[in-house]
Amino acid sequence: MSEHRNVTLGLLQMTMEDSAEANLTKALTMVREAASKGAKIIALPELFMGPYFCIDEKNTAAFDRAESIPGKSTEILGALAAECKIVLVGGSIYEIEGKTRYNTSCIFGPDGAVIGRYRKLHIPHDPGFYEQNYFGSGNAAPEVHSTPYGDIAVGICYDQWFPEFARMAALKGAELIIYPTAIGNAEVEPVDPAIPEDWEGMWRAAQVGHAASNCIYIAACNRVGNEASTHFFGGSFVADPNARLLARGDDTEKILLADIDLSYPKKMQASWRFLLERRPDMYGELTKGK
Amino acid sequence: MSEHRNVTLGLLQMTMEDSAEANLTKALTMVREAASKGAKIIALPELFMGPYFCIDEKNTAAFDRAESIPGKSTEILGALAAECKIVLVGGSIYEIEGKTRYNTSCIFGPDGAVIGRYRKLHIPHDPGFYEQNYFGSGNAAPEVHSTPYGDIAVGICYDQWFPEFARMAALKGAELIIYPTAIGNAEVEPVDPAIPEDWEGMWRAAQVGHAASNCIYIAACNRVGNEASTHFFGGSFVADPNARLLARGDDTEKILLADIDLSYPKKMQASWRFLLERRPDMYGELTKGK
Repeated sequence: MSEHRNVTLGLLQMTMEDSAEANLTKALTMVREAASKGAKIIALPELFMGPYFCIDEKNTAAFDRAESIPGKSTEILGALAAECKIVLVGGSIYEIEGKTRYNTSCIFGPDGAVIGRYRKLHIPHDPGFYEQNYFGSGNAAPEVHSTPYGDIAVGICYDQWFPEFARMAALKGAELIIYPTAIGNAEVEPVDPAIPEDWEGMWRAAQVGHAASNCIYIAACNRVGNEASTHFFGGSFVADPNARLLARGDDTEKILLADIDLSYPKKMQASWRFLLERRPDMYGELTKGK
Repeated sequence: MSEHRNVTLGLLQMTMEDSAEANLTKALTMVREAASKGAKIIALPELFMGPYFCIDEKNTAAFDRAESIPGKSTEILGALAAECKIVLVGGSIYEIEGKTRYNTSCIFGPDGAVIGRYRKLHIPHDPGFYEQNYFGSGNAAPEVHSTPYGDIAVGICYDQWFPEFARMAALKGAELIIYPTAIGNAEVEPVDPAIPEDWEGMWRAAQVGHAASNCIYIAACNRVGNEASTHFFGGSFVADPNARLLARGDDTEKILLADIDLSYPKKMQASWRFLLERRPDMYGELTKGK
C-alpha cells in the first residue's frame, strides 16, 4: 500500500465589491488566513476581481476590465503564493490578448511562478450568463499541473458540467480538479412552470458524479452573495473519490478547509478500473460535430 | 412550451433463486403487478434468471446457463410485454452465440416484439465480479430505442460508471437510460484500511451525475439479497434531469414505481445547453487507447 499524501485544501468563497483593488485586497487577506490554518492548495472564485458583469447581455463598459497576463494582477498573486508557500489557483481573470478576451485561470507554484494558464473552454450563453458576448473560448484540452502538493487540473465554472472535461483531466493523471465558479439563481423563466428545479443540487450532483466516475477529488469554489438580480448561492464544496462531501459552504462568505489524501485517487482507480476498462474504440461519437 | 409526456416507470428489485424457472415465474408475477399499478416501462435486474455466478473466479458449470437469443426466455418475456402492453427491459440474459457468451439485455415493445438487443460493453473484472471469465464484450455503442412510451437506452451494470456511455446515449436522443444491475458489497480487501468507503453512495452519485450532466432520466434496477459472501444492496433508484431522486429502494425485494415526464429532458437540454456547447474538437483524448 503506497503512502498517504495528506494535504489541506482551502476554498475562498467570496462576496465581491465593485472595485478590483478592494477584491484583490480581500483575496490577499483570505489567502493568508487560509494559509495560516494550514491550507497548501488554495483557490479563489471565477472573476473574483469584480462584479459578474455577464448578467447583462452586453455591458461594453466591462470590456475595460480586461487585463494582460502576465500583468499586475498575476504579479501580485504570484508574490502571494511565494509569501505563503502555497499552490494558488487564482480564480479567474478577465484576460485580453490582442483583440480577444478570455476567462482565464492562472495556477501559481509555491515559488511564485505561474505553472499553468487555462482559458475557459466551455462558454455558457443563456439569460443571466451571457458569456459569449464577453469571452472567446480557449482552444486547449485540460492540462494537469504537477505541483509539490499534488497533480491538479483547473476548469472554470460551466466546464464543470461537462463529463468530457473531467474524464480527460483524469486520463492525464489529475488527482484533483478545481473549478473556480460563478453560479447563482438568476431571474429567468423556468424550464417549465410545472417542474420545480434546484440548481444548486443539480450543480453539485454533476460534479460529485465526476468524482465517483473518475475516482478523483473535485473542488468547486463559488462566489456568493447578491449581484443585480442574481443570488450567487455559494455552496462551494470538496468531494472525494468515493463521492463523499468533505466540506460544503452555505450562502455566506467564508473559507472552507478540507483535508484530502492525494494517494486515494490512484488506489481507487486501480481497484475500480474505470480508466482501464474504457472502450475508446466505441467512443467515436464523442468527437463528432462542430 | 411543449406538452407533458407523463409515464410511470417500474423497477423490479428482485432476490434470486437458484432455479431459472422460479426466477422467471417471479419476474412474471412482479411485472404483472407493476403493470396493474400503471407502469408502462418496466425493468428487471441484470442476470435475473439465476445466482450471480461471477462471484466465483471461474465456475465453469455456470457456462451451461447460457442460452440463445431469440430463444425460450425471450419468447416468454415478449409474450409478457404484449399481455401487459408495456415496454419491458428484460434485465439481462446470459447469451451464447457460437462459442461466445455475452451479458445481453433485450427490450420488448408493447406488441411483444424485440425492439432492441444490447450486449454489455464494459466488463468488470475484480474480486467478486470476475465477469471477463464469463462474458465477451459487446462491440456497439449504446443505441436509443424509440418506443411508444419514450426514447430509451439500456446499459448494463458496470456501464453505469462510464460517463462516455451516458453521454453517447444522450447525444443520440435518449430521454431515459435504464441500467439492469447486479452490484453489492463483496468481501474484498479495502482500497486502504484508513479510507472508509460507501459503495452504494458512490454508485448512486456516479449515475445521478449522468442525469444532471445530460439532463436525462436515469434508472438503475439492482438485484437484492445475499448470495454467497456478497450482499446485493438493492437501492434501485430513479433520478430526474434535475438530479432529484424520485424513488429509491432499500435492501428488500420490491417494486419501485416513479412517475416521470419525458418532455423534461429536451426542455432542460435546450435551457442548459450542455449538448450544444460541447467542444468535440477538443475531445480527441477520449478516443485514444486500446
